[in-house]
Amino acid sequence: MGRTLEYPKGPLNTVKRAGLERGKYELGLVHSIIQTSLVLDVSFTPSPEDEFPAILPMIGAMGSFDNPSSGLDEPLDCYLHGYVSNRMNNLVRKAQSEGKPGLPVCIAANRVDGLVLALSGFHHSMNYRSACLFGYANVVTDPQEVLYGMTIITDKVVQGRWDNTRLPPTKADISSTAILRVTIKTGSGKVRNKVPGDDKEDMENEDLLNRVWTGYVPVTETLGEPVPSAYNRVKEVPGYLAKHREEYNDAITTYSEDFLQKMKN
Amino acid sequence: MGRTLEYPKGPLNTVKRAGLERGKYELGLVHSIIQTSLVLDVSFTPSPEDEFPAILPMIGAMGSFDNPSSGLDEPLDCYLHGYVSNRMNNLVRKAQSEGKPGLPVCIAANRVDGLVLALSGFHHSMNYRSACLFGYANVVTDPQEVLYGMTIITDKVVQGRWDNTRLPPTKADISSTAILRVTIKTGSGKVRNKVPGDDKEDMENEDLLNRVWTGYVPVTETLGEPVPSAYNRVKEVPGYLAKHREEYNDAITTYSEDFLQKMKN
Repeated sequence: MGRTLEYPKGPLNTVKRAGLERGKYELGLVHSIIQTSLVLDVSFTPSPEDEFPAILPMIGAMGSFDNPSSGLDEPLDCYLHGYVSNRMNNLVRKAQSEGKPGLPVCIAANRVDGLVLALSGFHHSMNYRSACLFGYANVVTDPQEVLYGMTIITDKVVQGRWDNTRLPPTKADISSTAILRVTIKTGSGKVRNKVPGDDKEDMENEDLLNRVWTGYVPVTETLGEPVPSAYNRVKEVPGYLAKHREEYNDAITTYSEDFLQKMKN
Repeated sequence: MGRTLEYPKGPLNTVKRAGLERGKYELGLVHSIIQTSLVLDVSFTPSPEDEFPAILPMIGAMGSFDNPSSGLDEPLDCYLHGYVSNRMNNLVRKAQSEGKPGLPVCIAANRVDGLVLALSGFHHSMNYRSACLFGYANVVTDPQEVLYGMTIITDKVVQGRWDNTRLPPTKADISSTAILRVTIKTGSGKVRNKVPGDDKEDMENEDLLNRVWTGYVPVTETLGEPVPSAYNRVKEVPGYLAKHREEYNDAITTYSEDFLQKMKN
């Protein structure tokens, strides 16, 4: 299409003030942060009587059942898998009966890339990539769409895994699996990728400069060496798994090294 | 005191069904998951007119300003640092004016420990440690308590760092820093730390067993080698930072190795 799609800025998703230069709205970037985070926090308001919002950790992937070949920079739904309680099921039904397109949820993903240590405690920070999506959650009922959701979620965790599991799923597999489809209304991302910085006065304080170490501590999340289960009979780690590990770890190392290079310049 | 304090189970925090055996309520465990997570997701309901809950990533630490020597297994508040928008400030004030003890929030922490790969896609899972706290957020106004919050949050990120920054803070440092104190009403944790498992039928399927690799992929978050800033003059990485890194990384390695040992037995 040749143009970059962005989520419309509104009161809901505009990244304000301190983070102004960090706000990101391109679908591709927001979706890729969601897509590469192992766990997502899904928040919803239980009911008008409950004063506290709830957060459930879930696994999720971006996808489109109707246009499965869509890229990450195109409009997509978010498919979620996790324990869908009776309470959540009831809330979805209640939202629908009230004429809403589903249960309003907020989905968050956060990746910490490093610790930023400055002279002043107040200039300490972290480098990170985070994303938020706002949308309407519905429980998927079409067995084909449940299957689609499970496939993209499994393949997100380990690329190529789905085709290397026991197939086809049984009817019981499908009926006992709760998949939520979240139709995205809007979203945003926030990326901090900066070197330490301090106030002018502190930077001119010789004693302070000679006393306080300042710098950056990279934080990296790594997929370790696969360990076979007690009942595994396949001698070698399969190629798709080795490849997934390599790509996952390489992406994190490359991101970190690019930043360290930037720090030097 | 000799007894283990637990959060009371109620409709808000009871870990249900599938997760039943994973539900944890001991203050020590719930607080330690919050305390060792680099980033926390904080959810609140913006206002009755906004249908979507909001999630903000924040940095936080457990502590007690009145009893600073309290242990992690004792009743504590959660101190949060992050961008507190005008909207959030207004919501806190509104909650107070409505006679509430603060803005109701949910705080979540998630740590992924590994990927669990089974024969059936539907038995794939992750090992993780997650915690949720429900409480009332207020903006801290006492300068001494702002200082306390900043100290414990900084020391949580790098143990011993606070005393090794520029001290004392200026009045501007304190007045420009927003710290939230969340008075905890209840909470819960959920820990999954299990080996892969499959249905009996799949376990008896010779062809499947010979074809599908099953096992565990450890996920570890590591603090890397500290990299000095462009203006750093302190030649050696300070002892407290080296020690913090070592302890942080060791705790994760030990947890992972203990699990792998359990897998073998």
